[in-house]
Amino acid sequence: MSSNIGQALKVQIFGESHGPMVGVTIDGLPAGIAIDEEWLNAFVQRRAAKGSAIATARRESDIPRIVSGVNPSGKTTGYALTAVFENADTHSSDYGFLPDRPRPGHADYPALMRSHGQDDLRGSGHHSGRLTLPHVLAGGVAMLLLRTIGVSIGAHILQVGSVRDQSIDPVHPDMEALERCHTREVPALDTAAGDAMMQAILAAKADQDSLGGIVEVAATGLPAGLGAPYFDGVEAVLAQQLFSIPAVKGVEFGAGFGCAAMLGSQYNDPYCMVDGKVRTTQNQAGGLLGGITNGMPVIARAAFRPTASIARQQQTVSLSAAAPAELTVHGRHDPCVAIRAVPVVEAAVAIALADLYLQSR
Amino acid sequence: MSSNIGQALKVQIFGESHGPMVGVTIDGLPAGIAIDEEWLNAFVQRRAAKGSAIATARRESDIPRIVSGVNPSGKTTGYALTAVFENADTHSSDYGFLPDRPRPGHADYPALMRSHGQDDLRGSGHHSGRLTLPHVLAGGVAMLLLRTIGVSIGAHILQVGSVRDQSIDPVHPDMEALERCHTREVPALDTAAGDAMMQAILAAKADQDSLGGIVEVAATGLPAGLGAPYFDGVEAVLAQQLFSIPAVKGVEFGAGFGCAAMLGSQYNDPYCMVDGKVRTTQNQAGGLLGGITNGMPVIARAAFRPTASIARQQQTVSLSAAAPAELTVHGRHDPCVAIRAVPVVEAAVAIALADLYLQSR
Amino acid sequence: MSSNIGQALKVQIFGESHGPMVGVTIDGLPAGIAIDEEWLNAFVQRRAAKGSAIATARRESDIPRIVSGVNPSGKTTGYALTAVFENADTHSSDYGFLPDRPRPGHADYPALMRSHGQDDLRGSGHHSGRLTLPHVLAGGVAMLLLRTIGVSIGAHILQVGSVRDQSIDPVHPDMEALERCHTREVPALDTAAGDAMMQAILAAKADQDSLGGIVEVAATGLPAGLGAPYFDGVEAVLAQQLFSIPAVKGVEFGAGFGCAAMLGSQYNDPYCMVDGKVRTTQNQAGGLLGGITNGMPVIARAAFRPTASIARQQQTVSLSAAAPAELTVHGRHDPCVAIRAVPVVEAAVAIALADLYLQSR
Amino acid sequence: MSSNIGQALKVQIFGESHGPMVGVTIDGLPAGIAIDEEWLNAFVQRRAAKGSAIATARRESDIPRIVSGVNPSGKTTGYALTAVFENADTHSSDYGFLPDRPRPGHADYPALMRSHGQDDLRGSGHHSGRLTLPHVLAGGVAMLLLRTIGVSIGAHILQVGSVRDQSIDPVHPDMEALERCHTREVPALDTAAGDAMMQAILAAKADQDSLGGIVEVAATGLPAGLGAPYFDGVEAVLAQQLFSIPAVKGVEFGAGFGCAAMLGSQYNDPYCMVDGKVRTTQNQAGGLLGGITNGMPVIARAAFRPTASIARQQQTVSLSAAAPAELTVHGRHDPCVAIRAVPVVEAAVAIALADLYLQSR
Repeated sequence: MSSNIGQALKVQIFGESHGPMVGVTIDGLPAGIAIDEEWLNAFVQRRAAKGSAIATARRESDIPRIVSGVNPSGKTTGYALTAVFENADTHSSDYGFLPDRPRPGHADYPALMRSHGQDDLRGSGHHSGRLTLPHVLAGGVAMLLLRTIGVSIGAHILQVGSVRDQSIDPVHPDMEALERCHTREVPALDTAAGDAMMQAILAAKADQDSLGGIVEVAATGLPAGLGAPYFDGVEAVLAQQLFSIPAVKGVEFGAGFGCAAMLGSQYNDPYCMVDGKVRTTQNQAGGLLGGITNGMPVIARAAFRPTASIARQQQTVSLSAAAPAELTVHGRHDPCVAIRAVPVVEAAVAIALADLYLQSR
Repeated sequence: MSSNIGQALKVQIFGESHGPMVGVTIDGLPAGIAIDEEWLNAFVQRRAAKGSAIATARRESDIPRIVSGVNPSGKTTGYALTAVFENADTHSSDYGFLPDRPRPGHADYPALMRSHGQDDLRGSGHHSGRLTLPHVLAGGVAMLLLRTIGVSIGAHILQVGSVRDQSIDPVHPDMEALERCHTREVPALDTAAGDAMMQAILAAKADQDSLGGIVEVAATGLPAGLGAPYFDGVEAVLAQQLFSIPAVKGVEFGAGFGCAAMLGSQYNDPYCMVDGKVRTTQNQAGGLLGGITNGMPVIARAAFRPTASIARQQQTVSLSAAAPAELTVHGRHDPCVAIRAVPVVEAAVAIALADLYLQSR
Repeated sequence: MSSNIGQALKVQIFGESHGPMVGVTIDGLPAGIAIDEEWLNAFVQRRAAKGSAIATARRESDIPRIVSGVNPSGKTTGYALTAVFENADTHSSDYGFLPDRPRPGHADYPALMRSHGQDDLRGSGHHSGRLTLPHVLAGGVAMLLLRTIGVSIGAHILQVGSVRDQSIDPVHPDMEALERCHTREVPALDTAAGDAMMQAILAAKADQDSLGGIVEVAATGLPAGLGAPYFDGVEAVLAQQLFSIPAVKGVEFGAGFGCAAMLGSQYNDPYCMVDGKVRTTQNQAGGLLGGITNGMPVIARAAFRPTASIARQQQTVSLSAAAPAELTVHGRHDPCVAIRAVPVVEAAVAIALADLYLQSR
Repeated sequence: MSSNIGQALKVQIFGESHGPMVGVTIDGLPAGIAIDEEWLNAFVQRRAAKGSAIATARRESDIPRIVSGVNPSGKTTGYALTAVFENADTHSSDYGFLPDRPRPGHADYPALMRSHGQDDLRGSGHHSGRLTLPHVLAGGVAMLLLRTIGVSIGAHILQVGSVRDQSIDPVHPDMEALERCHTREVPALDTAAGDAMMQAILAAKADQDSLGGIVEVAATGLPAGLGAPYFDGVEAVLAQQLFSIPAVKGVEFGAGFGCAAMLGSQYNDPYCMVDGKVRTTQNQAGGLLGGITNGMPVIARAAFRPTASIARQQQTVSLSAAAPAELTVHGRHDPCVAIRAVPVVEAAVAIALADLYLQSR
């Protein structure tokens, strides 16, 4: 078991929240991909806490240092690209309750069982959301590769608590609207929905609580014929990537769980010809039939559980005493992890599609 | 891209719907696992069409022939276990509309694009639901391995159309009730729900249509500490397996998509001590925290789209004419694939957990 | 640990010497490769015992049955290609000395330790040279793929005991001469050397003994730039394939072990231009620099130990008695495995190069 | 194609000779292995140029910085262990002849073909011997793991040019003598042979030339039963590791290429009982039968070509002019790479055995 994924494009992340650095190695990139560092830095910064009331107070510069795999002309060499990020702002003292009193909803207890007590749980160690930083960097590199074949990827926050944004149009996704929403603190398509989400999060935070959410993503420009039936199906490969993001508990494509209540005559997407190309008139399948792209936009959704670390008192156990115990967590945590996860979802989708694309050539 | 999955336990399926045989190789099994062929045959038969009005009319004996990897004493040798199934009852003439007029909702068109026209689409070829037969066999073998450490896996049909079965109790799943329901034509826990599902399917069929559904599964007896954060997380590995099953469009764990509307104080499962063991008082996490088992039952759900092949007339295109065309499919298809998928879901979960278990030793 | 190899082209062999069948699945093949079954059968037959005094008396038809992955037009579908071979002529009674008295030089004892006694050692089980049959089939399929880019592969027996054949010219290999020698019982380039090898083998056999040998192989037509430094270097990948062949104890490329006694000024192959192409004037590197092809022929050699099963009395132990014991083996074994290994070496090289080629596209 | 290897233990190296750093990630380590940094540093230093006349003048501190995977108590956490090394002493100006005039015997030309001209060839980039530094670090970590089950690994320089050291006794290797020889500039068992090797290297260097060599390695303490027939055989896995070391052109086990001239009755190692354990009276098999350990010492040899970069004038081509050209290389290169490769061979063996061991548990 490892923090390593991929067949043609292999991604290995490393690091712990309170260690000296986190980083990622991306191996299998073709030679000659232009690595636009300015764009890459901007993409990575989308994941950063924006200083608002709804994000962690931890401040990190999050500047990637690419240490291999890019030549002096800024192009990939075809060998392993490694990028590292220094960790600077760590408060290990916030975690004094560990390892004795594991947080409900958090990986503390199973991580201790997995490591026979050797896990370095300060700041949640390798389980920390901080590891999404190198994950996003790898996704950014994958996007630079996918751009060369005309693929675009964009996500937004579809739901927070009971507040819902408008959905992406699955036949004609407005990729520019998705890009525009990324400048907002709550990246919703509908600004009113975004405002309501902000209020819901602030209310939860004020109540020493947290909220869950759903991120929706679209990928356009994919050729038909990418993927495979069974284990290397696009859904299977994308889902493994999406469920790798901490806090994801559900993934669906196209109509997703809504399929269960549908008739075949509703679900099946009729074919049509548009400008000489085979298209479908609707897109319940989310662009994926039998694990293979059909040339329509790929539409996916990922559900995020609420942040596990909350300030209100919770019931746990003392592992040393094997007895009930109370716990109040005083760390610095986002009250709704789904908000900052929007670029992470884009990154995960990019890595999966880039790997499938490289395998298909 | 391949029909091959796994790290410590590698599963390779092969075959086409109308070829001479389908089969599977399972490599990485420890030596000495007793292969109870009687139980294995019975497990595989659960997937078979039961002759009722709601299943395909295709009749196959589906008797596995194990050709390697088991010694004369019926125990695994520690080398590749291969099992094959003969294909007997094939009606290739039913597929005369292919390759010209692809079925809406089906893999025909993307499969032709992927293979540059070389796919053998008779009976849907390698995309056929028939490939779930060797998949189930592999899952059965994985279950025999998991039994040796006390793991049980059981699934039921949770939803068909708008009819809903009762859910599995996530803290105390009734594994015997799950096993009992497998003898029913519609494997629901609540027989009234099962009857209503049957009526809904018959109504859809009478209307030359099909229905979607949801399968829910529980795995008990897993030790705490299995899995990993990130790419080898239990959710990630299980999801890759579950999305490999044809027709799955959504997968969730524990509270799943319901998490989005929850507060952390609702979602977080409080710890408690039960008989000296660490447990949780509820199980919104579905037994999984940060990609790792916490010792509670693993609960997952998979959403199945309606059967794509329906008898009513549908809109498609003629690929040769690059023009609109009508299509009526006269094959032999289940009107609700979720019903027969119940043991396939169990099998997928077993393979994923067995692989993770072998990696963890 | 498995009988599975490859990244873009995955090969999984299965079966035991005295089970019902042996076979192989090849996954990752591009769609549209013409599978010339006549040529494939002829290639597989080159490995067969030819009825002479120097080969096993076991007689098998060795006709491959391709059960998946090839469409009715004889082209690959792009999905798993599986081929199986029936086992017919088995004499399990020859192995009555097992599992108690392991053969010196054979895998019996370590196989029993690996499997905790569960290995099916009749005919050597999964360790049998019979598994080279599906290995050769997979190599034949890989050759059909490599032919489409102009790659040729040919091997000969370079040494048996102290008798040596002429070497392949590393700059201008005579591929037709290699092909011609394959019709001979001892596939040497120099027929006088072949005759002397035959005499040496017959002498060893008459003395109830066996002989080792060396197989040399050339691959031409490879583009420059295939491979990688480090773990996916051509030498590394080819060597893993070649050492997978039972009885191989040494592998070298180009000047190989002879390099140790060379000066750089002797070893380094000077570059030159030939017909506008970059070439080298000699080929000590065996076509491989830093793990990557340089466009010159790839030259490799594999050393085979003598057949372990010999009829003369040998010293072993009784595992049950934990005491010394004598052993005389009365099976049907080739007195020099290197002879029939010539096409196996070609197959191994073809699989490795096909995998690297598919990765490089 | 990647710089990534392993199944249970995954090793990913990264970096270029003249980039900011080189490093390695080791994933799949069990939790709780004590990382003795002092020993690890000493092991890594064995690979360093020792300031003598026979090593490169490049001076690097080569101090590993472990940035993840080790907890504050100095034990592995069970997550990815990453170590990085700064590059300090680089002379990129020495490589002005590139990319136009590739060095004979070096990877320059194929690397340019592989990367379509994008490779960063300064100091040989990712092809540099500097990448053996993180390789050795990974091997050191693997040794710390293997020590916990009593495995020892030791190598020496067996041959340089025509000078030969005494061989390791394959039945009773003197592991302490191997360890003692590592303090010598030329790590030969026989000091007279070491002195003669030194003279041979100095003579080659004085003549602006270089020399090849052979490294021999022994691993003791391995349990019987580790490995597999075919693709995961110990020979196959070790060979992939050993051929990954730059400049290796041959690998053999036990009697190796010498097997070809042997009779079965000479080669087969008779079994005997020693202190209640099954042993063999000789060890022509190098501890490996059918890809599996038999409990005897594993013995392997790797042949190294002479250093490609030599100061005397050589014949090459100008790629831009497509015409013959002369080349004289003024870099800083060891005249015999085999000398400093001794710990690299140990490291490669350790990584391969650790991976097989973890898979076998």
